[in-house]
Amino acid sequence: MSSTQPLPIALDAMGGDHAPAVTVAGALAAARAGIPVLLVGNEVRLHAELGSQAAGLPIEVVPAADVIRMDEHASDVRRRPEASVNVAVRLVKEGRAAAAVSMGHSGATMAAALLGLGRLPGVDRPAILTMAPSQKGSIALLDVGANADVRPQYLQQWAVLATYYLRAVRGVSDPSVGLLSIGEEEGKGNALVLEAYALLKNTPGIRFHGNVEGRDIFRGTTDIVVTDGFTGNVVLKTAEGEAKVLFGWIKEALSSSPLAKIGALLVRPALRGVAAKLDPSEHGASVLLGVKGLAFIGHGSADARAVEMAVRRAAEARDSGLIERLQEFRLD
Amino acid sequence: MSSTQPLPIALDAMGGDHAPAVTVAGALAAARAGIPVLLVGNEVRLHAELGSQAAGLPIEVVPAADVIRMDEHASDVRRRPEASVNVAVRLVKEGRAAAAVSMGHSGATMAAALLGLGRLPGVDRPAILTMAPSQKGSIALLDVGANADVRPQYLQQWAVLATYYLRAVRGVSDPSVGLLSIGEEEGKGNALVLEAYALLKNTPGIRFHGNVEGRDIFRGTTDIVVTDGFTGNVVLKTAEGEAKVLFGWIKEALSSSPLAKIGALLVRPALRGVAAKLDPSEHGASVLLGVKGLAFIGHGSADARAVEMAVRRAAEARDSGLIERLQEFRLD
Repeated sequence: MSSTQPLPIALDAMGGDHAPAVTVAGALAAARAGIPVLLVGNEVRLHAELGSQAAGLPIEVVPAADVIRMDEHASDVRRRPEASVNVAVRLVKEGRAAAAVSMGHSGATMAAALLGLGRLPGVDRPAILTMAPSQKGSIALLDVGANADVRPQYLQQWAVLATYYLRAVRGVSDPSVGLLSIGEEEGKGNALVLEAYALLKNTPGIRFHGNVEGRDIFRGTTDIVVTDGFTGNVVLKTAEGEAKVLFGWIKEALSSSPLAKIGALLVRPALRGVAAKLDPSEHGASVLLGVKGLAFIGHGSADARAVEMAVRRAAEARDSGLIERLQEFRLD
Repeated sequence: MSSTQPLPIALDAMGGDHAPAVTVAGALAAARAGIPVLLVGNEVRLHAELGSQAAGLPIEVVPAADVIRMDEHASDVRRRPEASVNVAVRLVKEGRAAAAVSMGHSGATMAAALLGLGRLPGVDRPAILTMAPSQKGSIALLDVGANADVRPQYLQQWAVLATYYLRAVRGVSDPSVGLLSIGEEEGKGNALVLEAYALLKNTPGIRFHGNVEGRDIFRGTTDIVVTDGFTGNVVLKTAEGEAKVLFGWIKEALSSSPLAKIGALLVRPALRGVAAKLDPSEHGASVLLGVKGLAFIGHGSADARAVEMAVRRAAEARDSGLIERLQEFRLD
């Protein structure tokens, strides 16, 4: 790779339910689009999977002897430095990669990034931010699972981090922040929300909209929705589950009668567009905000398309200068 | 009304965004189906709305001089005994009605029922149980908003109450209980869930399945999903919002091209069936569990169909003997 080329993305090629087949396929697709990728994992398996497909592409294999499987403990990260996710994070730490991406054990990825990169000054706990579909395009939802029990000031810090993220990476100049609650008025919510509201109201550098409700997520009332990692994770999985069940019902309905079957042929292309809007693989991966470096966490069930999109998102974040801008992150 | 007739349902006819037009229309429909209804509210307005339609039907007007509007405080219930919701609850307390139903201020309805009827022995806080659609029919979700901050033992009490409810009212002989969390394994979740898990595991009289995740709600993995009122409310509103946005997208897609429009004519009847599955008015209202009597809380936006269904649900609960069975409710 020439020295003028952008820094590569380190992909934990052993992470996820369908690794390394889909991670390699996704990396190849990203590399064809000009994004250099470091494939981290078992050398023999990765070279076998790559075959001759990598010829002329900006792909390199970086060996990692170990892998943390989905059913193992996130805390294993500490005592298994050669695990692929740890090696990927180390490449970022050492300045050899711009971002680490993993479709593997999400708790392990988070732990590896936190231990390997460290927290940004002023951040108590990193949070996972995911882009979710909405009527207005997409919204940023955080935390979606990194922190089950939180303090009000975490929510405040996350609101600021997400504001930086949307500004830098997605070009939203003045993103609005909603606090997820069970009523729009100030004073509605649980104890955590009431305290967080008071903090957010007086936080410089963010545009605080006030409380939002569950229905505002899909409506896209605000650009950012901030919540604790328990509620965020439940919301995300409920929404994914609902979409799946709904499309199952629609599929059934479209083959429920001879007439419906004929109609289905005519409407299917249009309905595919709706399904695509809800397809999590389009967003590729969630970002871990609050660590000193870029780390992306994908679905274990990711397909090659999701891996490719995750690598693309990582490259966009690299090019946005997010990490440089976060150097000035302050909460006083 | 003859003495052999079942006890009537007391309907807060002034409650809801479209009262009394839709409450009267809903009451008439229920009465035509043989359910006696007490219409509680402004006598003049209710008689005007009824006109001659109530002739021969088991409908009576019970005067109530006051009404607690949507934008007023739930605590107003205490100092406004003549508010329609208070009068409806009093009819239950006095044995003149089997259940109180309101589409009005849900906090006020809850407060009125709690103050007017009192808690069942062994219940710290009543919870709102709603039936939500699922792949297997429907699931019972509670609490969906009565208690934003809870203790583990509340979740335990609600699991038992919901088990009684599904057995008595919906004929589910041995309902399974899931604890909403962010991972299936014991040990996943926030501090509340970890403590509640330990209690639920050792609760006699319920079938505890363990943790369930957001995606299990629409899947219908368990018959009951128990959670705090903050999470439950957010989940419910997210799901409603998602369904609305999704159907909006589908509608758009079906008119996006001439071919799609033709196809739409053929598939519309089938898709209407899917929409009906998600229609909250089919379930009519949520039930407040844990008070000494039957109280149902509907959507402020309820239409006549939703009011009718709410009255029907109340009559079903009356006939199920739920309240009698709850006399034996114990948690030792």
